[in-house]
Amino acid sequence: MKKIAILGVGLIGASLGKALLSRGAVDSISGFGRRRSNLETALEMQCITQIAGTVEAAVRDAEIVVVCTPVETIAQTIRAALPHVQPGTIFTDVGSTKASIFDDFHELCEKFGCVFIGGHPIAGKETSGAAAADENLFVGKTTVLTNPKPEDAYEKIAQMWRNAGANVVFMPPLEHDAVLARTSHLPHLISCLLSASTDPSLYPFSGTGYLSMTRLAAGSPDIWRDILTDNRQNVLAALETFTEQLEQVREFLKNGETEALETFLKDAKANRSVLTQP
Amino acid sequence: MKKIAILGVGLIGASLGKALLSRGAVDSISGFGRRRSNLETALEMQCITQIAGTVEAAVRDAEIVVVCTPVETIAQTIRAALPHVQPGTIFTDVGSTKASIFDDFHELCEKFGCVFIGGHPIAGKETSGAAAADENLFVGKTTVLTNPKPEDAYEKIAQMWRNAGANVVFMPPLEHDAVLARTSHLPHLISCLLSASTDPSLYPFSGTGYLSMTRLAAGSPDIWRDILTDNRQNVLAALETFTEQLEQVREFLKNGETEALETFLKDAKANRSVLTQP
Repeated sequence: MKKIAILGVGLIGASLGKALLSRGAVDSISGFGRRRSNLETALEMQCITQIAGTVEAAVRDAEIVVVCTPVETIAQTIRAALPHVQPGTIFTDVGSTKASIFDDFHELCEKFGCVFIGGHPIAGKETSGAAAADENLFVGKTTVLTNPKPEDAYEKIAQMWRNAGANVVFMPPLEHDAVLARTSHLPHLISCLLSASTDPSLYPFSGTGYLSMTRLAAGSPDIWRDILTDNRQNVLAALETFTEQLEQVREFLKNGETEALETFLKDAKANRSVLTQP
Repeated sequence: MKKIAILGVGLIGASLGKALLSRGAVDSISGFGRRRSNLETALEMQCITQIAGTVEAAVRDAEIVVVCTPVETIAQTIRAALPHVQPGTIFTDVGSTKASIFDDFHELCEKFGCVFIGGHPIAGKETSGAAAADENLFVGKTTVLTNPKPEDAYEKIAQMWRNAGANVVFMPPLEHDAVLARTSHLPHLISCLLSASTDPSLYPFSGTGYLSMTRLAAGSPDIWRDILTDNRQNVLAALETFTEQLEQVREFLKNGETEALETFLKDAKANRSVLTQP
C-alpha cells in the first residue's frame, strides 16, 4: 500500500500505524487527531509518517481511511472526511460496537462512491494515547470485519490487519455486538461494579486476585459510557444470564449446598481451562 | 529460629519455607504432607530441610508448627499434632478464613500448654504445589494475624512473616473474615460466575480483559468450596452490596441514563486508581 490515513491516533490507531510501518506494509501514513502533542509523539515513535493539520489533508490520496476515534465520534469523523476522498476509497473503523455504525454509514459511503468495511481488533491495554503504542498489540489477536462485500475491499482491509499480525474473522454486525457484550462489555462492567462496591480502606487486605479483577475499571469512563450505551440491549441480555447464575449460586450458599457449589466451581474452572493463557 | 514444622507443603507452605531458608531465618524445617512426590520436590527446591514420615516426626522439637493445609483440614491436622509437641509450642496457620478456626482451636491448644496465633498471608497465584514455590511470594504483601496474645508468641509469628518479606497487621478473626469476603472471596466468586456463564465457543472473540477477569476461576474448586462455605454469611453480605450496585447500573442502562452511567464508571476508576499496581 502507498498511503493510508489514520484519524484518531490513540492507542489502537498508533499501534496499527506502528505495526504496519515497522513491517514495511505501507509507505506512508497520515495522522490526524485533536491533540497536537499526541500526534507529535506518534510521529516520533514512527506510528505515522506525517501529521495532517486537517481531516481533508489527512485523507487526500489515501487508499484506506482508518477511523480510530471513540465509538461516539466515528460518525462525524467519516462525515467530515467523505467530501475530500477519491471515489473508491475504503473506510474502516476500530469501534467496539458495530451494528449502529453499519446502519449509519454503509449507504452514506456508497453515495460518495466509497465503501465501508467495519472492523474491530480485539486487543487493547489499560494505557492510552500514542505513547502507549505497541507494534505487536494485534499479534495473534482476532480482528473482526463486519462487511464481506465488496470482496476486493474486504480482502484489502483483511490483508492490512494480517500485516499487523492479527487473525481476521468475518462476523455480521448484530452477531458481533451480541458476542462482544459477553466477552468484553459485560466483563468490563463487572470489573467496574467490583471496584465501585469496594471501600478503598480495605485495599491493604487485597491481593493479586483483586488487582486483576478490577484492572479493567481503570479504563476510560468516556469510551466505556459510549460502548455500554451503544450496545445496551446486548449488555442487558448478558447481564441477565450472569445474574441468573449469580442467583443460583447465592441459593447454594444460603442453603449450604456444598456439592452444587463445587460443581459450579468445577464448571467455571473447566470453561477457563479451554483458554490457554494465564 | 532452630526448627519449625510445616504441615501441608503446597504453594503457601513451600513458599514460606523457601522464603525463610533462603534468608537464613531458620536452621531446619521439617515438612509433612500427603503426597511423597510433592515433599521430594519441596526438599529439592530447598523449601524444607527434611521430609517427615508422620505428623509426630514433623513436629518433634519444633518451636513453631505452621499448618498450611486447606481450611477444612486445619482442625484435624492440629488435633493430630498436639499430643506430640513440647509445651510452649506455637501453632499458626495460613487459612483464608479465620473465625471458625479461632473458635475451635484456641482453647484446645491451651489444654496442651500451647498457643494458637491464627494467620493469613494475603498472597497466592493460580498454580499449586511445591513446584510453584516462590521465595518472594510474600514480599510487600500483608499477612494478617488474628490473635494478639500472648504477646511473645504473637511477636515470634510476626517476626517469622517479616523475615519472609511480609507486612504484618493484627485484625480480629470476625473482622478479618468480613474484610476478606469483600477483597478476595467475592472477587473469586465473580470470576467463576463470569467464566461459568460464558460459552467457550466465544473465546476467539475475547481479549486480555476477559483473561484477567476469569483468571481466578482456574483456582482449586476444593479449596474454594471450603472457603466460600466456611465464610458464607460474609460472602452473602458482600454479594448483597455488589448486587445492589448491579441493579442500579442495570437501571441506568435500561433507561439510557448516560450521565449516571458515566458517574458510576468514574467512581469505579477513581477507586481503582488508589491501587498503584496494574
